[in-house]
Parts: sequence; C-alpha cells; structure tokens
Amino acid sequence: MAAPQRIEADYLIETAFDPRRAAEAMAGEQSSGTFVAIPGETPELKERSAARIEALEEIGTVEAPSLPGAGRPKDDAAAIRRARVTLSWPIDNIGPSLPNLLATVAGNLFELKQFSGLRLLDIRLPAVFAARYPGPRFGISGTRRLAGVAEGPLIGTIVKPSVGFGAQETANLVRLLCTAGIDFIKDDELQSDGPHCPFDTRVDAVMRVINDHADRTGKKVMFAFNLTGELDEMRRRHDHVLERGGTCVMASLNSVGLVGMIELGRFSALPIHAHRNGWGYLSRAPMLGWSYVAWQKIWRLAGADHMHVNGLANKFSEADDSVIASARACLTPMFDDRPCIAMPVFSSGQSAKQAPGTFAALGTADLIFAAGGGIMAHPDGPAAGVASLREAWDAAMTDVPLADYARDHTALARALETYAA
Amino acid sequence: MAAPQRIEADYLIETAFDPRRAAEAMAGEQSSGTFVAIPGETPELKERSAARIEALEEIGTVEAPSLPGAGRPKDDAAAIRRARVTLSWPIDNIGPSLPNLLATVAGNLFELKQFSGLRLLDIRLPAVFAARYPGPRFGISGTRRLAGVAEGPLIGTIVKPSVGFGAQETANLVRLLCTAGIDFIKDDELQSDGPHCPFDTRVDAVMRVINDHADRTGKKVMFAFNLTGELDEMRRRHDHVLERGGTCVMASLNSVGLVGMIELGRFSALPIHAHRNGWGYLSRAPMLGWSYVAWQKIWRLAGADHMHVNGLANKFSEADDSVIASARACLTPMFDDRPCIAMPVFSSGQSAKQAPGTFAALGTADLIFAAGGGIMAHPDGPAAGVASLREAWDAAMTDVPLADYARDHTALARALETYAA
Repeated sequence: MAAPQRIEADYLIETAFDPRRAAEAMAGEQSSGTFVAIPGETPELKERSAARIEALEEIGTVEAPSLPGAGRPKDDAAAIRRARVTLSWPIDNIGPSLPNLLATVAGNLFELKQFSGLRLLDIRLPAVFAARYPGPRFGISGTRRLAGVAEGPLIGTIVKPSVGFGAQETANLVRLLCTAGIDFIKDDELQSDGPHCPFDTRVDAVMRVINDHADRTGKKVMFAFNLTGELDEMRRRHDHVLERGGTCVMASLNSVGLVGMIELGRFSALPIHAHRNGWGYLSRAPMLGWSYVAWQKIWRLAGADHMHVNGLANKFSEADDSVIASARACLTPMFDDRPCIAMPVFSSGQSAKQAPGTFAALGTADLIFAAGGGIMAHPDGPAAGVASLREAWDAAMTDVPLADYARDHTALARALETYAA
Repeated sequence: MAAPQRIEADYLIETAFDPRRAAEAMAGEQSSGTFVAIPGETPELKERSAARIEALEEIGTVEAPSLPGAGRPKDDAAAIRRARVTLSWPIDNIGPSLPNLLATVAGNLFELKQFSGLRLLDIRLPAVFAARYPGPRFGISGTRRLAGVAEGPLIGTIVKPSVGFGAQETANLVRLLCTAGIDFIKDDELQSDGPHCPFDTRVDAVMRVINDHADRTGKKVMFAFNLTGELDEMRRRHDHVLERGGTCVMASLNSVGLVGMIELGRFSALPIHAHRNGWGYLSRAPMLGWSYVAWQKIWRLAGADHMHVNGLANKFSEADDSVIASARACLTPMFDDRPCIAMPVFSSGQSAKQAPGTFAALGTADLIFAAGGGIMAHPDGPAAGVASLREAWDAAMTDVPLADYARDHTALARALETYAA
C-alpha cells in the first residue's frame, strides 16, 4: 500500500478501436499530446509531462455501444471491446492540488470520440497529497467520542418531512427521538435555511432539547445540522452550532463543490457529515462517470468525516454489492501514515433486518446506521424502533441469527414481523 | 419570460410505472413526502412545502430500460414509457440559494427506483435569485471592451501542449500568436501551477509579451490564465494577473465547484473564462444527468462570463445540434432585468470551415471562436491561420459562400484546401 510516485487512475473503457490506441489518445488528451506540432515543443518537454499507460487488460466485447456519439474504425465489422486501463501522470504536472487533480483524471476524457464508455474506477495518489490535505479530523474515533458511543454502530435517523417542519416541530421530533434512545440525527439535505425553518432558530430549538437531555441523562445526541450554503454562510452557521454546543455539521458535497469543502474541512471544529445527493447523475450509467471508490477519496482528503453509502436492500436503484464496495472503500486506509478513514453512513429503507448482512460484509460496526421508517414505524413506537436496531446489531456482532436473538428480545421480534425483508 | 413565483424544473423521465405516479414519487422525495406518518406533521405543514407536478406529457415507449436498477410494476408486460415532466417548489423551501437549489432540483432523484432514466432538462428561477447573485460582470460587452474587439468573434487559441511547456516556452508561443494577430489565448485546463510552469512565473513571462505587443500596436491580447485551485490560491493568482495588467482568468467549473465559483464571481475584477472539463460525465448518457441548458444557468448566475460549448464537427462525441442548443442557451436572457448573458466559447477541431454554419445557427458573432490546428497547422503559418478565420467569419457575416470569398482571400483559400470538412 505504499503511495505511488506518480498520480495513477484506473478506468473501464469501451471502444471500437484498438484499446491501446484509444488509451494512448486518453493519455495524450490529458497531458502533453498535440494534434499538430507546435513551435517550441521538444521530445524532452513532452516526455517530462506525458501521461503513461501503466496497464491495459481487455475484458471482453459487447454487441452495441453503451453511449452515443462514439466513432468507429474504417473496418465496420470491428468488435466493441472493453478493457481496464491504468494511466499515470507526473505529480509535477499539477503538484498536490485536489482541484487540478479533477481536471487531470476526470476532465475532458469522457467526451472523447474513441469511446462508447469510460468510467473512472479508482485513483492512487502520491504521499504529497497526504501532506497537503488534512483528511477527516474526527473520523471514527472522534465521532464515537463526541457521540458517547464506544462500540457498535451509531443508531441514527433523519428529520422527516424533509421540509415542512418549522424549528419547533423539528425540536419536538428531536425530543421524541432523544427519549427513544437515538445516537445520531441528521437534517434532510433539502432542509437548510429557508424562511419556514431558519438555520439559527432550528439550531437553538434543537440544541435546547439535546442539551437538556444530555444534562439529565449524560448522553449528548449528535445532530448533523445541514449548513450547505455559501462560504460565509457555512462559516457563520458552523460557529452558531459550535456555540450552542452542537457536535456535528452536514454539507452536500455536490452542492458545495470541492473548493468549498476544502475550506469547510480547514475551518470546521466539528465532524463533517458529507451528503452525496446527486450521486446518481455521476454514477448510474454503468459505462460512464465515477465509481464511488474513486470519488470518495477526493472528499476524504478534503476532510469529510462521514460519507453516505446508501444501504443494503435500499429504496434506490443501487445493488447491494455496490453499497458494500462503497462502505469498504471508506474504511480502507488511503496512506500508510494518514489513513483518512471516513465513517460510512448507511441509510435508505434500513431496519433491523439489514444488520446481519451489513456486519457480515464489513466485519466492523464502525458506521452510522440510519433508519426512518425502521424506527418511526415500529409498532411499539420509536423507542422500540431504536431498541430493535441495537438488538439486531448485538445479534449480528455476536453471530447469533436474528430469529434466535428475537426470542427474548421483544423489540427485535416485533420489528422482524413488521418490516419486509 | 416573466420569472416564475416558484422554482421550476423540467425533466425527461423513463419509467415502467404510471408516469404520473412516478412523478409524484419524485415530487415527494424532493420535498415533504414521507414513507410513514411522522408525529407533528400536518396536512398544512406538508402542503406548504410540497413540490407540485406542473405538467406531464408522455412522449412514447422504449423496448429496454436505459439504466439498470429500476423496479418494475407487478404487471410484467408494462411498457417502459418516456415523459417530460415539470415540477415546482415553493421558493421558501430554500430561499434564493444556488447550493441548496442543486440539492432540490438535482439531488437524490436520479437514484429513484421508479426510473430507468431521468435527466434534468431546464430550470426556471424566481426573480429573487437575480437579486441575490451578480451574474457575469463583464459578459459580451465587457469582454469586447477589454479585448479591443468591437465586432465579429474573438479569434482565439489554446496553449498546447497542455502541459510540458515552461513559462518561457509559453511566452514564446504567445509572442508568435500576438504577431499572428490573435485576439484571445487561453491556458489549457491541465496547466495551472505545477513546478515546471509556476503560475506567477507564467503570468510574468506572458504579460511581458502581451504588454510589449500592446505598447507597440495598441492591441492587448486577452489571455485567460487558469487559476483553478483552492480559494486563497485563486484569490492570490487573480490579484497577480490583475497587477501585471492581465485581462482574464480561467477556472474549471467541475474542479472548483459551486461555492468556490460564487466566491470567485464575487471577488474577480476580471472576466471569468469558465471551462467545463468533466462535462462528459454529467451529460453523455442521454437518459441521465444534466442538459447543458439547465446546467449553464447555475454558472451564469454564479458569475461565469465565458462558457465553453464545444464546436460544430468537433473532435469529441457531441452532435452539432446539441452544441448549438448550448450556445443559444448562453445567449438567452435569464431574467428580464438581469439577462446574465455569457459569451459562448467554441473550440475543439475548429477551422475556417465551421464559421458559416456557426453564424447561420446563432445569428450572432458574440462569441469566442478558438482553434488550435486551425491556426497552427495553416500551411502558411499562424498569421495566415488567424487571417483565414477572420476571413471566414467576414464571409459568413456578409452571407457570402466561403468558396466565393476565398477567390480573393488567399489565407481562407489555403485553409479550405487544408482542413477536412
């Protein structure tokens, strides 16, 4: 796992041309290639900056192009071939700059006519990136400390309806959830600072409830306040959360963008709960865009402490193996001396039923497990909903089948009756 | 063209379910919908914030789903239907906030299981957005003034090789291009501030050439220096360009992100040349992601003065009608009293040949027309290359066929022999 000397990126490509020639076009487009010779260019100058093909493996052919607009060679019968290709670039092309890394590994190449499919699968970065970027400042241990949860998953939920509640309705719901024994609550990504539920008023009302509950019980529930907005707004909102004793802020990665997230990562004195809404447009076409494995590395370096990964048997379109690959990626160290681990956040249609599968696939409970209906729709109420999730995770972590564990755990038993598999 | 009272967004959807039911799921997911009833929610609260379906038009059926992971109704024979749908949201859900607008119109919905295709086609915003965001500060008139080009397109080019040149090689090329009569030059998006060609050194060397040329000829060539980087870097680089007498900065939209671009738009005292590299991963799957018509509005409001739109008969995979739709979008006013027009930038495989088609489709020459090989590979050298482009545009703007105009315009005649159609 030693960091490479050059920037490396793995791609899945689909092309009707010779895959090596097509990969050479990628490498040229993304570095020192020119279509015509330019006065002043020399082989030495071009070589110094050229991208290289480090590996190329053909993996089969397909009947039809996955994306429109691709060219075809003159040989009309040429097969459409798929391959994995690894390119590398000298770090001195850009220096350790995350914004410029994006233009290098994920810039113009998706539009190249040579390809009817091109997807960025992974990236590996020289150690200078770890020296330049802080990575998550809280990660798993900092989050556990602030939430007061030493082991097992943080059991969480989302304030719903997404929008509609004012500050007081939100605080009332938070009171109910605190009493129910929750560890973690988040704003919905649609809720930020609208006139019906202004950010500061919401923070004040919610933190009054959370602080009261902490005073009485010793347990301070972590609430991720969605501070997504412009830079000054995020700074001001962050300070307000901190001042009221809050322990987490949330930001939408695709709304804020990379430069804004780097700034937030630098000034935040609280864990950053990173929401991935919009992820679908980056990833849902299988032969285009980003794999989560590559994408999450950018945001971890920028400072994201929690990263959304969807959940098993979710209500969205993502398959389970993709969800698990995403969560594993967040938990895999990026550099030997700076692992930059982010805590994966499971959500979307989660209930007690998904605990064993999630634990079996990951081998750890270092995660946030967020349920909406899985808590609020429990027939015995939210406290039983939270209890059912804890019981399910206890069962999973001690390798006891849920049905067995449910025999003397009523909340779990009732959850298993209630939620569809 | 009166601005709407609510936020509106048009989508192309593909679903095996009843399209209206599917659209209701979108509207619910992106506003006050909940899967289970929540304590405290009332019909009034939910109604206040609910997204509405404003229009729905079915446009046909398809054989196979465009994207994987979609659900199917129990009726296995159900057709896969496509429709255009318009949703609207109360502005008070988020207030006039561009970052929160993204989560609202382009958030979780692309992953909804109801859809095997979902693309954002257009957005329309209440006038409070125009009051909040500055839009381009220079646009067409400011760019023309700074570049000293009163009419016709700005004839431009890109420094190539993208990376490889040091500051001095770049300045030498710029000298050649100034002498050749160019109006506009841009850094490649891969060139920013690497050790081999540091930003400040490059600005110093290039501006010495440009200022010398301006002193001698009265013409100050506009150079878009790529300042893409972190916020403090962009600020410092911008100030350096300004101090050396530069007249334009460039930033990669997908590298900087929205919050960073809003900041740049607020502090920049120079036109912002906005590069769209990475656009392919947002758009190339026809039933996923963003149309440029929707996307460019976000960046114009944030302050982009120049927007890349590719070019006719380009070397990438985009069709000509899409290129023209993009350019027209940039030239279409966003609000009655604040049009926020951005200057479209044509590039990629451009030569004299594309001038008539481009002008005919747009009816204006308020654009930047950038060519690489179309200038540098002209058989009589770069000055003839630049002249051939001007001659081609003069012909187009006076409605004379290129072949006729070429009879007494040698540079154009030689270009028409040289460049493939």
